[in-house]
Amino acid sequence: MKSDFTQRLFTEQEQDLLFEIIMSRRDVRGNRFLPKEIDQETTLKIIQAGLHGPSVGFSQPWEFVIVKNPETKQQIKASFNTENTKGADQFCEEKKDTYTNLKLEGIEEAPLNIAVFYKPKNTPVLGQTSMPNMGRYSVVCAIQNMWLMARSLNIGMGWVSILDPEKVKTILNSPKENELIGYLCFGYTDMFYDQPELELKKWDTRKPLNEVIIEEKY
Amino acid sequence: MKSDFTQRLFTEQEQDLLFEIIMSRRDVRGNRFLPKEIDQETTLKIIQAGLHGPSVGFSQPWEFVIVKNPETKQQIKASFNTENTKGADQFCEEKKDTYTNLKLEGIEEAPLNIAVFYKPKNTPVLGQTSMPNMGRYSVVCAIQNMWLMARSLNIGMGWVSILDPEKVKTILNSPKENELIGYLCFGYTDMFYDQPELELKKWDTRKPLNEVIIEEKY
Repeated sequence: MKSDFTQRLFTEQEQDLLFEIIMSRRDVRGNRFLPKEIDQETTLKIIQAGLHGPSVGFSQPWEFVIVKNPETKQQIKASFNTENTKGADQFCEEKKDTYTNLKLEGIEEAPLNIAVFYKPKNTPVLGQTSMPNMGRYSVVCAIQNMWLMARSLNIGMGWVSILDPEKVKTILNSPKENELIGYLCFGYTDMFYDQPELELKKWDTRKPLNEVIIEEKY
Repeated sequence: MKSDFTQRLFTEQEQDLLFEIIMSRRDVRGNRFLPKEIDQETTLKIIQAGLHGPSVGFSQPWEFVIVKNPETKQQIKASFNTENTKGADQFCEEKKDTYTNLKLEGIEEAPLNIAVFYKPKNTPVLGQTSMPNMGRYSVVCAIQNMWLMARSLNIGMGWVSILDPEKVKTILNSPKENELIGYLCFGYTDMFYDQPELELKKWDTRKPLNEVIIEEKY
Protein backbone atom coordinates (compact mmCIF):
# COMPACT_ATOMS: atom_id res chain seq x y z
CA MET A 1 0.00 0.00 0.00
CA LYS A 2 1.31 3.41 -0.94
CA SER A 3 1.52 5.67 2.09
CA ASP A 4 0.06 9.15 1.61
CA PHE A 5 2.80 10.97 3.45
CA THR A 6 6.52 11.15 3.73
CA GLN A 7 8.74 11.69 6.71
CA ARG A 8 11.80 12.37 4.58
CA LEU A 9 14.01 14.51 6.75
CA PHE A 10 16.87 16.23 4.99
CA THR A 11 20.29 16.42 6.61
CA GLU A 12 22.45 19.47 7.27
CA GLN A 13 24.72 18.43 4.42
CA GLU A 14 21.72 18.31 2.07
CA GLN A 15 20.53 21.72 3.27
CA ASP A 16 24.00 23.11 2.57
CA LEU A 17 23.96 21.66 -0.92
CA LEU A 18 20.63 23.32 -1.71
CA PHE A 19 22.02 26.61 -0.45
CA GLU A 20 25.09 26.14 -2.63
CA ILE A 21 22.93 25.59 -5.72
CA ILE A 22 20.87 28.68 -4.83
CA MET A 23 24.08 30.73 -4.41
CA SER A 24 25.60 29.42 -7.65
CA ARG A 25 22.58 30.25 -9.81
CA ARG A 26 23.26 33.12 -12.21
CA ASP A 27 21.42 34.99 -14.94
CA VAL A 28 23.42 33.86 -17.97
CA ARG A 29 23.66 35.80 -21.20
CA GLY A 30 25.04 35.22 -24.69
CA ASN A 31 28.63 36.03 -23.70
CA ARG A 32 28.82 32.79 -21.71
CA PHE A 33 26.71 30.25 -23.63
CA LEU A 34 28.32 27.37 -25.52
CA PRO A 35 26.68 26.00 -28.67
CA LYS A 36 26.50 22.44 -27.21
CA GLU A 37 23.00 20.99 -27.62
CA ILE A 38 20.75 20.29 -24.64
CA ASP A 39 19.21 16.87 -25.22
CA GLN A 40 15.50 16.08 -24.88
CA GLU A 41 15.87 14.16 -21.62
CA THR A 42 17.69 17.06 -19.98
CA THR A 43 15.14 19.55 -21.32
CA LEU A 44 12.38 17.45 -19.77
CA LYS A 45 14.20 17.33 -16.43
CA ILE A 46 14.21 21.12 -16.37
CA ILE A 47 10.51 21.35 -17.28
CA GLN A 48 9.59 18.63 -14.75
CA ALA A 49 11.16 20.76 -12.01
CA GLY A 50 8.78 23.52 -13.10
CA LEU A 51 5.78 21.20 -13.16
CA HIS A 52 6.45 20.30 -9.54
CA GLY A 53 6.35 23.93 -8.51
CA PRO A 54 3.50 25.11 -6.33
CA SER A 55 0.37 26.34 -8.08
CA VAL A 56 -2.52 28.21 -6.56
CA GLY A 57 -5.50 25.88 -6.08
CA PHE A 58 -3.44 23.20 -7.93
CA SER A 59 -4.42 25.08 -11.09
CA GLN A 60 -1.12 24.40 -12.96
CA PRO A 61 -1.76 27.49 -15.10
CA TRP A 62 1.40 27.12 -17.19
CA GLU A 63 2.39 26.35 -20.76
CA PHE A 64 5.96 25.88 -22.00
CA VAL A 65 6.89 26.54 -25.61
CA ILE A 66 10.22 24.95 -26.56
CA VAL A 67 11.90 27.13 -29.18
CA LYS A 68 14.95 25.96 -31.12
CA ASN A 69 14.24 27.21 -34.63
CA PRO A 70 16.82 29.89 -35.61
CA GLU A 71 14.24 31.90 -37.57
CA THR A 72 11.94 32.11 -34.57
CA LYS A 73 14.84 33.15 -32.36
CA GLN A 74 15.77 35.83 -34.88
CA GLN A 75 12.27 37.29 -34.70
CA ILE A 76 12.35 37.27 -30.90
CA LYS A 77 15.78 38.92 -31.00
CA ALA A 78 14.35 41.68 -33.20
CA SER A 79 11.77 42.46 -30.50
CA PHE A 80 14.60 42.55 -27.95
CA ASN A 81 16.55 45.02 -30.08
CA THR A 82 13.59 47.39 -30.35
CA GLU A 83 12.73 47.21 -26.64
CA ASN A 84 16.37 47.47 -25.60
CA THR A 85 16.84 50.76 -27.45
CA LYS A 86 13.68 52.11 -25.81
CA GLY A 87 14.87 50.78 -22.43
CA ALA A 88 18.33 52.37 -22.68
CA ASP A 89 16.75 55.76 -23.37
CA GLN A 90 15.10 55.73 -19.95
CA PHE A 91 18.45 55.96 -18.13
CA CYS A 92 20.50 59.08 -17.49
CA GLU A 93 23.61 59.55 -19.58
CA GLU A 94 26.14 57.85 -17.30
CA LYS A 95 23.94 54.82 -16.63
CA LYS A 96 22.97 54.68 -20.29
CA ASP A 97 26.62 54.22 -21.29
CA THR A 98 26.98 51.28 -18.92
CA TYR A 99 23.61 49.89 -20.04
CA THR A 100 24.51 49.82 -23.72
CA ASN A 101 27.77 48.02 -22.93
CA LEU A 102 25.99 45.18 -21.14
CA LYS A 103 25.07 41.98 -22.96
CA LEU A 104 21.52 41.49 -21.72
CA GLU A 105 20.28 38.39 -23.53
CA GLY A 106 21.43 35.21 -25.21
CA ILE A 107 18.44 34.39 -27.40
CA GLU A 108 20.41 33.26 -30.45
CA GLU A 109 23.49 31.95 -28.61
CA ALA A 110 21.42 29.67 -26.35
CA PRO A 111 20.62 26.35 -28.06
CA LEU A 112 17.35 26.12 -26.14
CA ASN A 113 14.76 28.84 -25.51
CA ILE A 114 11.57 28.23 -23.52
CA ALA A 115 8.72 30.74 -23.52
CA VAL A 116 6.60 30.28 -20.41
CA PHE A 117 3.00 31.40 -20.51
CA TYR A 118 0.25 31.91 -17.98
CA LYS A 119 -3.04 30.44 -19.16
CA PRO A 120 -5.90 31.97 -17.19
CA LYS A 121 -8.93 29.85 -16.35
CA ASN A 122 -12.41 31.16 -17.04
CA THR A 123 -13.74 29.64 -13.82
CA PRO A 124 -12.81 30.67 -10.25
CA VAL A 125 -9.52 29.35 -8.89
CA LEU A 126 -9.18 28.40 -5.23
CA GLY A 127 -6.76 30.84 -3.60
CA GLN A 128 -6.95 33.37 -6.41
CA THR A 129 -10.27 34.98 -5.50
CA SER A 130 -8.72 37.80 -3.43
CA MET A 131 -5.32 38.11 -5.11
CA PRO A 132 -5.78 37.86 -8.89
CA ASN A 133 -2.04 37.76 -9.58
CA MET A 134 -1.64 34.37 -7.88
CA GLY A 135 -1.87 32.43 -11.16
CA ARG A 136 0.97 34.49 -12.64
CA TYR A 137 2.97 33.97 -9.45
CA SER A 138 2.52 30.19 -9.74
CA VAL A 139 4.12 30.34 -13.16
CA VAL A 140 7.03 32.34 -11.71
CA CYS A 141 7.56 29.69 -9.01
CA ALA A 142 7.77 27.09 -11.77
CA ILE A 143 10.39 29.22 -13.54
CA GLN A 144 12.49 29.53 -10.38
CA ASN A 145 12.41 25.73 -9.97
CA MET A 146 13.58 25.40 -13.59
CA TRP A 147 16.37 27.90 -12.99
CA LEU A 148 17.73 25.98 -10.00
CA MET A 149 17.33 22.61 -11.74
CA ALA A 150 19.19 23.93 -14.79
CA ARG A 151 22.03 25.20 -12.59
CA SER A 152 22.33 21.83 -10.88
CA LEU A 153 22.58 20.31 -14.38
CA ASN A 154 25.43 22.77 -15.02
CA ILE A 155 23.28 24.62 -17.52
CA GLY A 156 22.97 28.40 -17.44
CA MET A 157 19.63 30.15 -17.77
CA GLY A 158 18.90 33.75 -18.65
CA TRP A 159 15.48 35.36 -18.22
CA VAL A 160 14.95 37.87 -21.03
CA SER A 161 12.40 40.50 -20.04
CA ILE A 162 13.35 43.21 -22.51
CA LEU A 163 10.74 42.03 -24.99
CA ASP A 164 7.32 43.12 -26.16
CA PRO A 165 5.16 40.28 -24.80
CA GLU A 166 2.51 40.87 -27.46
CA LYS A 167 5.12 40.52 -30.23
CA VAL A 168 6.35 37.27 -28.68
CA LYS A 169 2.77 35.96 -28.58
CA THR A 170 2.29 36.78 -32.24
CA ILE A 171 5.59 35.13 -33.23
CA LEU A 172 4.63 31.94 -31.36
CA ASN A 173 0.96 31.93 -32.49
CA SER A 174 -0.09 32.03 -28.86
CA PRO A 175 -3.78 31.92 -27.98
CA LYS A 176 -5.05 35.40 -27.19
CA GLU A 177 -5.85 34.67 -23.54
CA ASN A 178 -2.31 33.50 -22.74
CA GLU A 179 0.14 35.89 -21.11
CA LEU A 180 3.90 35.71 -21.50
CA ILE A 181 5.53 35.49 -18.08
CA GLY A 182 9.12 34.63 -18.94
CA TYR A 183 11.25 34.09 -22.01
CA LEU A 184 14.07 31.80 -20.92
CA CYS A 185 17.37 30.98 -22.63
CA PHE A 186 19.27 27.82 -21.69
CA GLY A 187 22.75 26.62 -22.57
CA TYR A 188 25.89 25.08 -21.21
CA THR A 189 28.42 27.76 -20.31
CA ASP A 190 32.16 28.32 -20.33
CA MET A 191 31.83 29.43 -16.68
CA PHE A 192 29.49 30.83 -14.09
CA TYR A 193 30.30 34.14 -12.40
CA ASP A 194 30.42 33.81 -8.64
CA GLN A 195 28.38 36.98 -8.14
CA PRO A 196 25.47 38.45 -10.09
CA GLU A 197 26.96 40.03 -13.23
CA LEU A 198 25.32 43.39 -12.43
CA GLU A 199 26.93 43.30 -8.97
CA LEU A 200 30.35 42.46 -10.45
CA LYS A 201 30.00 45.26 -12.97
CA LYS A 202 28.92 47.69 -10.23
CA TRP A 203 25.50 48.43 -11.75
CA ASP A 204 24.11 48.26 -8.20
CA THR A 205 25.19 47.06 -4.75
CA ARG A 206 23.76 44.40 -2.47
CA LYS A 207 21.28 45.80 0.06
CA PRO A 208 22.16 45.37 3.74
CA LEU A 209 19.98 42.98 5.75
CA ASN A 210 18.57 45.68 8.01
CA GLU A 211 17.12 47.47 5.01
CA VAL A 212 15.00 44.51 3.93
CA ILE A 213 14.12 42.66 7.16
CA ILE A 214 11.49 44.23 9.40
CA GLU A 215 10.53 42.88 12.83
CA GLU A 216 6.78 42.56 13.49
CA LYS A 217 5.66 45.85 11.90
CA TYR A 218 6.97 48.79 9.91
CA MET B 1 43.18 36.65 -5.17
CA LYS B 2 39.47 35.98 -5.32
CA SER B 3 38.46 34.56 -8.67
CA ASP B 4 35.40 36.11 -10.23
CA PHE B 5 33.94 32.90 -11.53
CA THR B 6 33.23 29.40 -10.45
CA GLN B 7 33.48 26.16 -12.32
CA ARG B 8 31.50 24.24 -9.69
CA LEU B 9 29.95 21.36 -11.56
CA PHE B 10 27.21 19.53 -9.73
CA THR B 11 27.03 15.73 -9.88
CA GLU B 12 24.12 13.53 -10.88
CA GLN B 13 23.58 12.65 -7.23
CA GLU B 14 23.36 16.34 -6.36
CA GLN B 15 20.92 16.97 -9.22
CA ASP B 16 18.76 14.12 -7.92
CA LEU B 17 18.79 15.58 -4.44
CA LEU B 18 17.58 18.96 -5.69
CA PHE B 19 14.81 17.21 -7.58
CA GLU B 20 13.86 15.31 -4.43
CA ILE B 21 13.62 18.55 -2.45
CA ILE B 22 11.50 20.09 -5.23
CA MET B 23 9.22 17.04 -5.24
CA SER B 24 8.92 16.97 -1.43
CA ARG B 25 7.90 20.61 -1.12
CA ARG B 26 4.28 21.03 -0.05
CA ASP B 27 1.89 23.85 0.75
CA VAL B 28 1.44 23.27 4.47
CA ARG B 29 -1.59 24.41 6.45
CA GLY B 30 -2.59 24.59 10.10
CA ASN B 31 -3.62 20.93 10.28
CA ARG B 32 0.05 19.90 10.04
CA PHE B 33 2.02 22.58 11.90
CA LEU B 34 3.66 21.85 15.26
CA PRO B 35 4.01 24.65 17.84
CA LYS B 36 7.83 24.15 18.03
CA GLU B 37 9.63 27.51 17.67
CA ILE B 38 11.80 28.31 14.66
CA ASP B 39 14.97 29.93 15.97
CA GLN B 40 16.48 33.15 14.63
CA GLU B 41 19.38 31.43 12.87
CA THR B 42 17.02 29.13 10.97
CA THR B 43 14.71 32.03 10.10
CA LEU B 44 17.69 33.90 8.66
CA LYS B 45 18.73 30.85 6.62
CA ILE B 46 15.30 30.86 5.00
CA ILE B 47 15.43 34.60 4.29
CA GLN B 48 19.02 34.35 2.96
CA ALA B 49 17.80 31.81 0.40
CA GLY B 50 15.31 34.46 -0.71
CA LEU B 51 17.93 37.19 -0.84
CA HIS B 52 19.99 35.09 -3.23
CA GLY B 53 17.09 34.76 -5.61
CA PRO B 54 17.33 36.47 -8.97
CA SER B 55 16.14 40.05 -9.21
CA VAL B 56 15.52 42.08 -12.32
CA GLY B 57 18.36 44.56 -12.85
CA PHE B 58 19.74 43.43 -9.45
CA SER B 59 17.02 45.66 -7.96
CA GLN B 60 16.35 43.41 -4.91
CA PRO B 61 12.85 44.92 -4.65
CA TRP B 62 11.83 42.91 -1.58
CA GLU B 63 11.03 43.49 2.07
CA PHE B 64 10.36 40.75 4.62
CA VAL B 65 8.24 41.40 7.70
CA ILE B 66 8.73 38.76 10.38
CA VAL B 67 5.45 38.33 12.28
CA LYS B 68 5.24 36.34 15.51
CA ASN B 69 2.92 38.47 17.64
CA PRO B 70 -0.34 36.54 18.28
CA GLU B 71 -2.42 39.73 18.14
CA THR B 72 -1.09 40.58 14.70
CA LYS B 73 -1.74 37.04 13.52
CA GLN B 74 -5.29 37.27 14.86
CA GLN B 75 -5.91 40.40 12.79
CA ILE B 76 -4.49 38.75 9.67
CA LYS B 77 -6.65 35.70 10.34
CA ALA B 78 -9.73 37.93 10.51
CA SER B 79 -8.97 39.16 6.99
CA PHE B 80 -8.60 35.54 5.87
CA ASN B 81 -12.00 34.68 7.35
CA THR B 82 -13.74 37.51 5.49
CA GLU B 83 -12.04 36.75 2.18
CA ASN B 84 -12.53 33.01 2.55
CA THR B 85 -16.29 33.38 2.91
CA LYS B 86 -16.36 35.58 -0.20
CA GLY B 87 -14.10 33.09 -2.01
CA ALA B 88 -16.25 30.05 -1.17
CA ASP B 89 -19.31 31.82 -2.59
CA GLN B 90 -17.71 31.89 -6.04
CA PHE B 91 -17.86 28.10 -6.39
CA CYS B 92 -20.82 25.99 -7.45
CA GLU B 93 -22.61 24.05 -4.73
CA GLU B 94 -20.67 20.77 -4.98
CA LYS B 95 -17.26 22.46 -5.12
CA LYS B 96 -18.31 24.85 -2.36
CA ASP B 97 -18.93 21.95 0.02
CA THR B 98 -15.43 20.60 -0.61
CA TYR B 99 -13.98 24.12 -0.36
CA THR B 100 -15.44 24.85 3.05
CA ASN B 101 -14.10 21.53 4.37
CA LEU B 102 -10.54 22.37 3.39
CA LYS B 103 -8.12 23.92 5.88
CA LEU B 104 -6.58 26.63 3.73
CA GLU B 105 -4.20 28.48 6.06
CA GLY B 106 -2.14 28.10 9.21
CA ILE B 107 -1.66 31.72 10.25
CA GLU B 108 -2.13 31.17 13.96
CA GLU B 109 -0.81 27.60 14.14
CA ALA B 110 2.48 28.51 12.43
CA PRO B 111 5.01 29.92 14.93
CA LEU B 112 6.53 32.10 12.21
CA ASN B 113 4.76 34.23 9.59
CA ILE B 114 6.64 36.29 7.02
CA ALA B 115 4.87 38.92 4.92
CA VAL B 116 6.81 39.55 1.73
CA PHE B 117 6.40 42.90 0.00
CA TYR B 118 7.39 44.34 -3.33
CA LYS B 119 8.89 47.80 -2.97
CA PRO B 120 8.73 49.61 -6.32
CA LYS B 121 11.53 52.00 -7.27
CA ASN B 122 10.71 55.47 -8.53
CA THR B 123 13.53 55.32 -11.07
CA PRO B 124 13.76 52.99 -14.11
CA VAL B 125 14.87 49.42 -13.46
CA LEU B 126 17.05 47.59 -15.99
CA GLY B 127 15.00 44.73 -17.44
CA GLN B 128 11.68 46.10 -16.22
CA THR B 129 11.15 48.76 -18.89
CA SER B 130 9.07 46.53 -21.20
CA MET B 131 7.55 44.14 -18.66
CA PRO B 132 6.46 46.12 -15.60
CA ASN B 133 5.61 43.00 -13.58
CA MET B 134 9.26 41.90 -13.45
CA GLY B 135 9.84 43.44 -10.01
CA ARG B 136 6.90 41.50 -8.57
CA TYR B 137 8.20 38.35 -10.26
CA SER B 138 11.62 38.84 -8.63
CA VAL B 139 9.92 38.80 -5.25
CA VAL B 140 8.11 35.58 -6.18
CA CYS B 141 11.44 33.95 -7.15
CA ALA B 142 12.74 34.87 -3.69
CA ILE B 143 9.67 33.24 -2.13
CA GLN B 144 10.18 30.03 -4.10
CA ASN B 145 13.81 29.89 -2.90
CA MET B 146 12.55 30.32 0.68
CA TRP B 147 9.99 27.57 0.18
CA LEU B 148 12.61 25.06 -0.98
CA MET B 149 15.10 26.11 1.70
CA ALA B 150 12.42 25.70 4.38
CA ARG B 151 11.57 22.22 3.09
CA SER B 152 15.23 21.19 3.17
CA LEU B 153 15.27 22.39 6.80
CA ASN B 154 12.26 20.08 7.37
CA ILE B 155 10.03 23.10 7.89
CA GLY B 156 6.68 23.40 6.15
CA MET B 157 5.57 26.59 4.45
CA GLY B 158 2.09 27.67 3.43
CA TRP B 159 1.41 30.62 1.13
CA VAL B 160 -1.82 32.29 2.21
CA SER B 161 -3.38 34.23 -0.66
CA ILE B 162 -6.95 34.42 0.62
CA LEU B 163 -6.33 37.81 2.21
CA ASP B 164 -7.15 41.42 1.45
CA PRO B 165 -3.66 42.79 0.67
CA GLU B 166 -4.70 46.31 1.67
CA LYS B 167 -5.89 45.09 5.08
CA VAL B 168 -2.57 43.29 5.60
CA LYS B 169 -0.70 46.48 4.72
CA THR B 170 -2.72 48.46 7.25
CA ILE B 171 -2.19 45.85 9.98
CA LEU B 172 1.59 45.91 9.39
CA ASN B 173 1.84 49.72 8.96
CA SER B 174 3.29 49.16 5.52
CA PRO B 175 4.39 52.15 3.43
CA LYS B 176 1.74 53.01 0.87
CA GLU B 177 3.90 52.22 -2.16
CA ASN B 178 4.64 48.64 -1.01
CA GLU B 179 2.61 45.78 -2.44
CA LEU B 180 1.97 42.51 -0.63
CA ILE B 181 3.15 39.61 -2.78
CA GLY B 182 2.94 36.70 -0.36
CA TYR B 183 1.90 36.03 3.21
CA LEU B 184 3.90 32.99 4.29
CA CYS B 185 3.41 30.68 7.28
CA PHE B 186 6.29 28.53 8.53
CA GLY B 187 6.43 25.70 11.05
CA TYR B 188 7.77 22.26 11.74
CA THR B 189 5.21 19.62 10.81
CA ASP B 190 4.02 16.24 11.99
CA MET B 191 4.43 15.03 8.38
CA PHE B 192 4.55 16.11 4.75
CA TYR B 193 2.02 14.70 2.28
CA ASP B 194 3.68 13.03 -0.66
CA GLN B 195 1.34 14.71 -3.13
CA PRO B 196 -0.21 18.20 -3.19
CA GLU B 197 -3.08 18.17 -0.69
CA LEU B 198 -5.54 19.35 -3.36
CA GLU B 199 -4.47 16.45 -5.60
CA LEU B 200 -4.85 13.96 -2.74
CA LYS B 201 -8.29 15.33 -1.94
CA LYS B 202 -9.30 15.22 -5.62
CA TRP B 203 -9.92 18.95 -5.95
CA ASP B 204 -8.16 18.74 -9.33
CA THR B 205 -5.98 16.32 -11.30
CA ARG B 206 -2.44 16.66 -12.64
CA LYS B 207 -2.32 17.88 -16.24
CA PRO B 208 -0.71 15.54 -18.79
CA LEU B 209 2.60 16.68 -20.28
CA ASN B 210 1.25 17.06 -23.81
CA GLU B 211 -1.23 19.64 -22.58
CA VAL B 212 1.45 22.00 -21.25
CA ILE B 213 4.48 21.43 -23.49
CA ILE B 214 4.38 22.90 -26.99
CA GLU B 215 7.06 22.34 -29.63
CA GLU B 216 8.28 25.48 -31.44
CA LYS B 217 4.88 27.18 -31.89
CA TYR B 218 1.24 26.85 -30.97
